[in-house]
Amino acid sequence: MKIGIVMGSISDLGVMKGAVEICNRFGVEYEIKVLSAHRTPAQVEEWASSARERGFAALIAGAGGAAHLGGVVAAFTTLPVIGVPVKSRSLEGLDSLLSMVQMPPGIPVATVGIDGARNAALLAIEMMAITDKRLKEELDAFRKEQAEKVLAANNDLLSQL
Amino acid sequence: MKIGIVMGSISDLGVMKGAVEICNRFGVEYEIKVLSAHRTPAQVEEWASSARERGFAALIAGAGGAAHLGGVVAAFTTLPVIGVPVKSRSLEGLDSLLSMVQMPPGIPVATVGIDGARNAALLAIEMMAITDKRLKEELDAFRKEQAEKVLAANNDLLSQL
Amino acid sequence: MKIGIVMGSISDLGVMKGAVEICNRFGVEYEIKVLSAHRTPAQVEEWASSARERGFAALIAGAGGAAHLGGVVAAFTTLPVIGVPVKSRSLEGLDSLLSMVQMPPGIPVATVGIDGARNAALLAIEMMAITDKRLKEELDAFRKEQAEKVLAANNDLLSQL
Amino acid sequence: MKIGIVMGSISDLGVMKGAVEICNRFGVEYEIKVLSAHRTPAQVEEWASSARERGFAALIAGAGGAAHLGGVVAAFTTLPVIGVPVKSRSLEGLDSLLSMVQMPPGIPVATVGIDGARNAALLAIEMMAITDKRLKEELDAFRKEQAEKVLAANNDLLSQL
Amino acid sequence: MKIGIVMGSISDLGVMKGAVEICNRFGVEYEIKVLSAHRTPAQVEEWASSARERGFAALIAGAGGAAHLGGVVAAFTTLPVIGVPVKSRSLEGLDSLLSMVQMPPGIPVATVGIDGARNAALLAIEMMAITDKRLKEELDAFRKEQAEKVLAANNDLLSQL
Amino acid sequence: MKIGIVMGSISDLGVMKGAVEICNRFGVEYEIKVLSAHRTPAQVEEWASSARERGFAALIAGAGGAAHLGGVVAAFTTLPVIGVPVKSRSLEGLDSLLSMVQMPPGIPVATVGIDGARNAALLAIEMMAITDKRLKEELDAFRKEQAEKVLAANNDLLSQL
Amino acid sequence: MKIGIVMGSISDLGVMKGAVEICNRFGVEYEIKVLSAHRTPAQVEEWASSARERGFAALIAGAGGAAHLGGVVAAFTTLPVIGVPVKSRSLEGLDSLLSMVQMPPGIPVATVGIDGARNAALLAIEMMAITDKRLKEELDAFRKEQAEKVLAANNDLLSQL
Amino acid sequence: MKIGIVMGSISDLGVMKGAVEICNRFGVEYEIKVLSAHRTPAQVEEWASSARERGFAALIAGAGGAAHLGGVVAAFTTLPVIGVPVKSRSLEGLDSLLSMVQMPPGIPVATVGIDGARNAALLAIEMMAITDKRLKEELDAFRKEQAEKVLAANNDLLSQL
Repeated sequence: MKIGIVMGSISDLGVMKGAVEICNRFGVEYEIKVLSAHRTPAQVEEWASSARERGFAALIAGAGGAAHLGGVVAAFTTLPVIGVPVKSRSLEGLDSLLSMVQMPPGIPVATVGIDGARNAALLAIEMMAITDKRLKEELDAFRKEQAEKVLAANNDLLSQL
Repeated sequence: MKIGIVMGSISDLGVMKGAVEICNRFGVEYEIKVLSAHRTPAQVEEWASSARERGFAALIAGAGGAAHLGGVVAAFTTLPVIGVPVKSRSLEGLDSLLSMVQMPPGIPVATVGIDGARNAALLAIEMMAITDKRLKEELDAFRKEQAEKVLAANNDLLSQL
Repeated sequence: MKIGIVMGSISDLGVMKGAVEICNRFGVEYEIKVLSAHRTPAQVEEWASSARERGFAALIAGAGGAAHLGGVVAAFTTLPVIGVPVKSRSLEGLDSLLSMVQMPPGIPVATVGIDGARNAALLAIEMMAITDKRLKEELDAFRKEQAEKVLAANNDLLSQL
Repeated sequence: MKIGIVMGSISDLGVMKGAVEICNRFGVEYEIKVLSAHRTPAQVEEWASSARERGFAALIAGAGGAAHLGGVVAAFTTLPVIGVPVKSRSLEGLDSLLSMVQMPPGIPVATVGIDGARNAALLAIEMMAITDKRLKEELDAFRKEQAEKVLAANNDLLSQL
Repeated sequence: MKIGIVMGSISDLGVMKGAVEICNRFGVEYEIKVLSAHRTPAQVEEWASSARERGFAALIAGAGGAAHLGGVVAAFTTLPVIGVPVKSRSLEGLDSLLSMVQMPPGIPVATVGIDGARNAALLAIEMMAITDKRLKEELDAFRKEQAEKVLAANNDLLSQL
Repeated sequence: MKIGIVMGSISDLGVMKGAVEICNRFGVEYEIKVLSAHRTPAQVEEWASSARERGFAALIAGAGGAAHLGGVVAAFTTLPVIGVPVKSRSLEGLDSLLSMVQMPPGIPVATVGIDGARNAALLAIEMMAITDKRLKEELDAFRKEQAEKVLAANNDLLSQL
Repeated sequence: MKIGIVMGSISDLGVMKGAVEICNRFGVEYEIKVLSAHRTPAQVEEWASSARERGFAALIAGAGGAAHLGGVVAAFTTLPVIGVPVKSRSLEGLDSLLSMVQMPPGIPVATVGIDGARNAALLAIEMMAITDKRLKEELDAFRKEQAEKVLAANNDLLSQL
Repeated sequence: MKIGIVMGSISDLGVMKGAVEICNRFGVEYEIKVLSAHRTPAQVEEWASSARERGFAALIAGAGGAAHLGGVVAAFTTLPVIGVPVKSRSLEGLDSLLSMVQMPPGIPVATVGIDGARNAALLAIEMMAITDKRLKEELDAFRKEQAEKVLAANNDLLSQL
């Protein structure tokens, strides 16, 4: 199964790359697209509504400002949709966050932190790992690595003071 | 020409009624609908994309929370779209406002104040009045009336202290 | 497979009930608990770390204020964790939202809107439906129902003006 | 018909230029002015109150901080007034946005996103296009171009990963 | 010398009454008006620009939402203008506060706290007391009274536990 | 009569200089001090409580973060106290603004915009000009100059497009 | 040793009572006062500066709005000062919180959550328990009780669904 | 007795160094660690729960974003826990602050200002100084020094204008 990654503008790529890196790290296939809820609504609809039959397990949508992309994608699929609020030029990302997370009853968007594309991909992989043993084990390994990195930071901590 | 009024949920009617009252006051025809950007996206698309040929001059969209309705309507028409951020149960309407107003370049939504449905209809009428003399004169009369109401409030002001 | 629902305080039950209603509606088994990240950390750890082997597909955590419960649950499992920021007595739920959603890289919490327990359960079911055909069809039916409810609201709209 | 563009300070020009670019792109005549609601109120009144008879269809007002310019312009005309909240040196533009959009009942200002001067001009053109066929067709062409740009971004997306 | 009190809407009277009470308490003459920066701009201009010669020492302006009244009054006089941000139906008064206080360089509005009409009048009296001995002494007496009230609250504090 | 200028930290000088420039421009004597409400409370008390008899007409206090200086100065004098919220390293000056402006009933601080030291001095001069004709005329001249500067900006506006 | 509890206004008593209840629960002596940083600064200074020699271990200050009381108390003692931001009539307590917590370098105020008087007293007791064995054991017992209450809530959870 | 300093990520070291500098200044022993509430929960538990018997008087926890570290540390000890909200890449530190300070009843975190690591260490030392005379005197000396620095800033103030 694959993860779909969509962003509202090519300017979101710097952030959304993080999702690609995680997919690569976990050996999970992905498709990445620039599609806009407002400028290319037909293509968003087509992409989202065909996603399940095209073998996607979850969709990640990154956008900034009035970030409708997650909600619009979610309107056309019952696959889980993960929203990445991208920090825009004003308001420190608060606009992106609120317009992603505050979805009305019935159509959820699983929102991660501002610019949190890596976490979005991890979340998608956690969803796939519900029934995929290999990914479950990879996640365990990843967690262990993360813990080791944190602990390793203590080794030369004193030298940095 | 007509004004289209759409709201994301029947619970927005208490607020959106204000737009109807203004239409009635100015003798402007309107169509009012409950349509959800997330729950009935096909109907929103159909409604918005056929609006111009069905004789609408401007569209008003009211929604709360992650208020995508204005943006989604705007994606399907080049008629002016006016957004009414409806105050929801949390965040005092800030979420509704930001997800309406912070639209990306290319697809504007003319946003009015939180719960500002009356002003949305006045704005639509101002747009029609660019070329409609009767409405222009009605707007002048309305302004005059408003001014008189404000000034009249001074008459019994001292008695209320 | 089951859905785990945990809340930080019995006072969150009014909100978190929404998740139970959705589970019942979809015929999905659930376990519901009151456990506090700060007052009963050992029990949270035990509950979260054993969840996968006890047959859970996803965990939902609802909490208010400095809402750490989602993050603490996520620290002890690689199952997807869904956070419900519960509106507390001040700050309109902004504190709950930010302390849920702004998780550091590596440990995501899939955050839904403030008081969005129903959406949290729908999200969990969407995750299960990646590989569960019955749930996929139930979700389609639910979406259809929702759309019909929205459209039905138009029937007596004019009578309410 | 023409579009009027006014800004509260010459320092807003970097943002407000965007409106000029759109006017030029659509072959729409415009007048651009620096006028301050607080420092040159008489000139604002004169400019706004004579705008209709001088052939303007809509007025765009850009200002930052306690951004009263849109409201003050709107007080002197029943032409549609579009507000551009300009991000100032503090508060990330929230002050500009709120003092533009939260207009009292009776005097609307059609507010666009922070620093959204391009969208303001597009909105003005949409208003003119209600009855102007050429502009309607130009808007359609502009939308198409925008969509193509978004889709074209997909061509070399993979090479940027 | 007199204090001028103006409010944007009769609905602000509940708050602005506080300023009247302080004027009465200090035996200072006042004039109170309902005038709107947007609905009756001519009257605001007339009131503000004639205030100095009509014997006013300071002007107090109370308004909510996009609270332009203080700034518009200040544009027409060099008397000190005191702004009272009135809490409106949404955003907890933050909109009123920011659109009052964030005035551009050159035209200050002396802003007090949200709904702080009593403090606005005290501030006006402090300004008059720069050169008015009686008021200076009254202010001292008022401060003393205030201190005594605070201290007196300690008398039956324990009985309230 | 003189204007007193106090700031909580030498790091506020970059902002508070603006007040000095205005005093110089208007030929008004001033005293400038660095005194901290928390680190040198005795000196603040002494400075504020002796200010009236030492010939001050108004006091300006600039501080950032938990900006108590304005309130503490106001506690020791009935001279008008003007607060300048200085933008600190986080929160964009919102903390400074709220801790200045939201004073309790009885002890007002006349708050200007974030980093608004120039406006603070203008406000002080407006207070002095209630009874000082020369300053009144200087204020009129300053306003005229400001208006001319705004209007002059229009001369080469087109060349900057 | 004793805990000092001070509040800026008698209207804060409803919140600050929580601190008294905790003191009583732990058998810790306390003194409770209403004293205002702005209205009774001399008494605040006297109370705070004599607190250590009068046998206090820690001081708790509760206030709302521009909540300077914690900072002003801290200016006069090197005892630990705990701030309780009390929710006021506007801004949901954000003003109280920021003006308590954002203290400048050198003079900390240990801030607890909005209306968190109970936690303030617990914090004071934790400070005393650094060297007081009885209190340390009481804290352990209190934590155990708290945990038990959380766990007990699970007993009749299902019956409430 | 010692002060424990823990931070959620090595990237917080730039801020948390401030706490070390204060410890050194006061000759107080400290232990500094990088431990993550989410990535190394077992180590956090071990560190916090053994802190009292290992001779710590107070613990300082610095973290950004969804800053749970303070709360998680506090869950495992009844030593006073001091939280330092570290400003992260978005939202200006508001997320860090709210997720630190808004702790639920029963488990306080003594929160200082954003990036306030120096104040956190001072607070810890104030707690130790409740019963430690040397530290009490050092604090007095530190306060005196601070006051002198503020006053000294006045010496060359005029030369900087």
